[in-house]
Amino acid sequence: MSAVDLNSDLGEGFGRWSLGDDEQMLGIVSSANVACGFHAGDPASIRRTVRSAVEHGVTVGAHVGYRDLAGFGRRNMDVPDDELEADVAYQIGALRGLADAEGAAVTYVKPHGALYNTAAVDERVAAAVARAVAAVDPGLVLLGLPGSAALAAAKAAGLATATEAFADRAYTPEGRLVSRREPGAVLHDADEVARRMLRLVTEGVVTAVDGSDVAVRADSVCVHGDSPGAVAMARRIREVFDAEGIALRAFAPVTGGAAA
Amino acid sequence: MSAVDLNSDLGEGFGRWSLGDDEQMLGIVSSANVACGFHAGDPASIRRTVRSAVEHGVTVGAHVGYRDLAGFGRRNMDVPDDELEADVAYQIGALRGLADAEGAAVTYVKPHGALYNTAAVDERVAAAVARAVAAVDPGLVLLGLPGSAALAAAKAAGLATATEAFADRAYTPEGRLVSRREPGAVLHDADEVARRMLRLVTEGVVTAVDGSDVAVRADSVCVHGDSPGAVAMARRIREVFDAEGIALRAFAPVTGGAAA
Amino acid sequence: MSAVDLNSDLGEGFGRWSLGDDEQMLGIVSSANVACGFHAGDPASIRRTVRSAVEHGVTVGAHVGYRDLAGFGRRNMDVPDDELEADVAYQIGALRGLADAEGAAVTYVKPHGALYNTAAVDERVAAAVARAVAAVDPGLVLLGLPGSAALAAAKAAGLATATEAFADRAYTPEGRLVSRREPGAVLHDADEVARRMLRLVTEGVVTAVDGSDVAVRADSVCVHGDSPGAVAMARRIREVFDAEGIALRAFAPVTGGAAA
Amino acid sequence: MSAVDLNSDLGEGFGRWSLGDDEQMLGIVSSANVACGFHAGDPASIRRTVRSAVEHGVTVGAHVGYRDLAGFGRRNMDVPDDELEADVAYQIGALRGLADAEGAAVTYVKPHGALYNTAAVDERVAAAVARAVAAVDPGLVLLGLPGSAALAAAKAAGLATATEAFADRAYTPEGRLVSRREPGAVLHDADEVARRMLRLVTEGVVTAVDGSDVAVRADSVCVHGDSPGAVAMARRIREVFDAEGIALRAFAPVTGGAAA
Repeated sequence: MSAVDLNSDLGEGFGRWSLGDDEQMLGIVSSANVACGFHAGDPASIRRTVRSAVEHGVTVGAHVGYRDLAGFGRRNMDVPDDELEADVAYQIGALRGLADAEGAAVTYVKPHGALYNTAAVDERVAAAVARAVAAVDPGLVLLGLPGSAALAAAKAAGLATATEAFADRAYTPEGRLVSRREPGAVLHDADEVARRMLRLVTEGVVTAVDGSDVAVRADSVCVHGDSPGAVAMARRIREVFDAEGIALRAFAPVTGGAAA
Repeated sequence: MSAVDLNSDLGEGFGRWSLGDDEQMLGIVSSANVACGFHAGDPASIRRTVRSAVEHGVTVGAHVGYRDLAGFGRRNMDVPDDELEADVAYQIGALRGLADAEGAAVTYVKPHGALYNTAAVDERVAAAVARAVAAVDPGLVLLGLPGSAALAAAKAAGLATATEAFADRAYTPEGRLVSRREPGAVLHDADEVARRMLRLVTEGVVTAVDGSDVAVRADSVCVHGDSPGAVAMARRIREVFDAEGIALRAFAPVTGGAAA
Repeated sequence: MSAVDLNSDLGEGFGRWSLGDDEQMLGIVSSANVACGFHAGDPASIRRTVRSAVEHGVTVGAHVGYRDLAGFGRRNMDVPDDELEADVAYQIGALRGLADAEGAAVTYVKPHGALYNTAAVDERVAAAVARAVAAVDPGLVLLGLPGSAALAAAKAAGLATATEAFADRAYTPEGRLVSRREPGAVLHDADEVARRMLRLVTEGVVTAVDGSDVAVRADSVCVHGDSPGAVAMARRIREVFDAEGIALRAFAPVTGGAAA
Repeated sequence: MSAVDLNSDLGEGFGRWSLGDDEQMLGIVSSANVACGFHAGDPASIRRTVRSAVEHGVTVGAHVGYRDLAGFGRRNMDVPDDELEADVAYQIGALRGLADAEGAAVTYVKPHGALYNTAAVDERVAAAVARAVAAVDPGLVLLGLPGSAALAAAKAAGLATATEAFADRAYTPEGRLVSRREPGAVLHDADEVARRMLRLVTEGVVTAVDGSDVAVRADSVCVHGDSPGAVAMARRIREVFDAEGIALRAFAPVTGGAAA
């Protein structure tokens, strides 16, 4: 494996409020998970992010979440299936409207925050998300956690899927993410993170918290966009990848046509 | 002229709150201006309205408004051009997402409330709306007031346009709507309204408030969906049209393909 | 026991959307649970409801809910304690601002919808609500389900409490509400409901779904405000109470002074 | 004049998004205009700001705005009087609820953004704001622009008023603010700004854009909280005031009791 995707959550400002540095990140990543207005993202700033993604040749995905601006989509909500499906379809469509206006295409979907976490383990929620994505456009790719209910439901719905690893997160010996409540769950050293992701791509393993090697398979590496040092960490990963001859290759096409 | 369109504002509930009787109206009209979530319309209820429109063979248009749920989009807002353009593109896209999920298409756009009124007279706002519509899809038709800045801007942006008359509104001898602040501005007698719209379609005139005949040209007749007696009035108009051999014909196609 | 309170959820419109008939209900009940803007209620309509409550001599309580207009506060949300406490304090304060403007006082608090249900069984959530209420004003009364975590937490926080029964709901032989998912959970016959509530007040029992008598103790009887027939049912209960010499007496004072 | 107030707009984050550095500014100013949730401010972050204000002995005022999170309250809105009055009362009350929970008091009101600008010149809007403030609590002070319609309406409503100057804004020879659209309208040099404010306090004049001295009377100096360099500029002003023996004195009491 000599190529991998780098994805990041972008477009997460809202009106007067900005978050992260979309311009910098769009110069580094190959896929942009763009907020759709429910957890973050006002239309004008979303559009600017999409425009910049187009300029950088970055693939645009819909980062759909619960309708919860005050909680940034990080608070779990018991949303009935029909409402959740419609919420997801609405958000994908909204982003596509702005992408259309910029001559771009939305080619994948990644649930955000609490919806990501719930859809990873709850088959009902996973199925609702998958149905919504397939109903809007069966050509969309669903990006998610390897082994998650979200990806299983997506496959069952006939969607293509892509898997991701988290650059700044520690893994258990079983290949799961260490809970954020545990010490050492989040990694901060850019060099260490870059070396870990290099092994992930070249050897298909990461070092788990107990020092053992654990197999992790990922089509994409997620670098967070809103934490301090996020840009520096993403850049370091990119530098190491470049130096080792690992190409950046989006798992979904930049435009709505055939994959690059 | 032996055919005309009937349009109505639908999908204007929000969550627990409903407004008007979409089911009844969709059995009467040929075009549905469907709320897009900014002035009204949660995704699940919008989707139900779109589904019902599909079942009734009714054309779906995007009823885009200011972001103002508390004011139902009826309070004018000074929204900068880039924000307004993005807001309009977002709303059209969102409705298209839900329409896609129902195998439907959004084929026209009608501004709502304060945005409708402002875009009718303010060239800057009219141009922003037109740019947004054209940027999302130059095949969309803009529905508006005859002689309005909105339609002029739409034509300048290369869009097809359609004009509408208001069934329950009085007209000045100059062919303008009598302000709602004036007595007699809103008509309530279903028979009278139906007769007026019959003359509009067959003779191209309506009786103005001073008793004179005034020429009014309209591709569509707007029947309001949310007032008491709205369904009865719409039904009476439809009955009179049916009895006089006036066909209902949407000005925009039901699907995204060629017009019916 | 020759007196009881009647409470109803009011002020639950939002902008263009109305719900229930506040004017009619305020002529029947003794306590109004007034929406505070998070699950329903725009400031202007809340104020009108408060004004009408003052005119009818009805006690005003804060009906606090999750921040979820689209879900009407009926979808459970995992809100961290500090956010929930602040949300509750904000809502009580907001209603008090409008009550101040009408020379009224807010003298009790009742959680709404999903927050009511969760606070009834989840000690963490119950404690957060109780802390918020006590922090804003330790003189406020908390209205809730007999035996609920909400009331236990309120007492622990030093608050006065009041219990309520639901007029239109069936009870289990253990004195719990039959789940809405079960058949027969919701009662629709006004006469039957009135007779049940009469027994509740005079004998302290209701007939459970299995035909047995179960003891239910309640300071207040909740009549819903937004269902069809709600006013008729509330009026029938009131008529039966009046005929049997049962006085309506609010459990909390109409004004901020000593209880009536 | 040997004392003056320093005020700043604070509490203007929303959920995940922060703005400005409240902690730093609360160590410098004497009055905090705290957002109330309509243009910015979620309850939990508002509460933290109020708590910090209490710790720093800073007076808390309600920074009320239009209901427009997406536009940060900076877009003018045509809000009917009864809605605007209720919106203002709601916001003041909401902040008071959070202040009550922190043992603090809200002792003044300052309109924000577009509402500030409109209330400065539009007598109808000014009167609606004044009526709302007086209805909630006639002891509240209204802070505004010298000579504005807002202050005139407040006085007519029986409210105490306070005037403010803007530290980082240029003035016309007539004593008005230079429009932000003009070059040089906003000042960036902390030393220059501090010297100007020193003259304002000690001589009652500022140097206008044409070099002339113009009389400006202000009870308070507004230092903006959200621009780059805001804290540095506020600190410089405070240092110069301290060095010159000018005391900081809030125009409204820190608590709800008599002014300090």
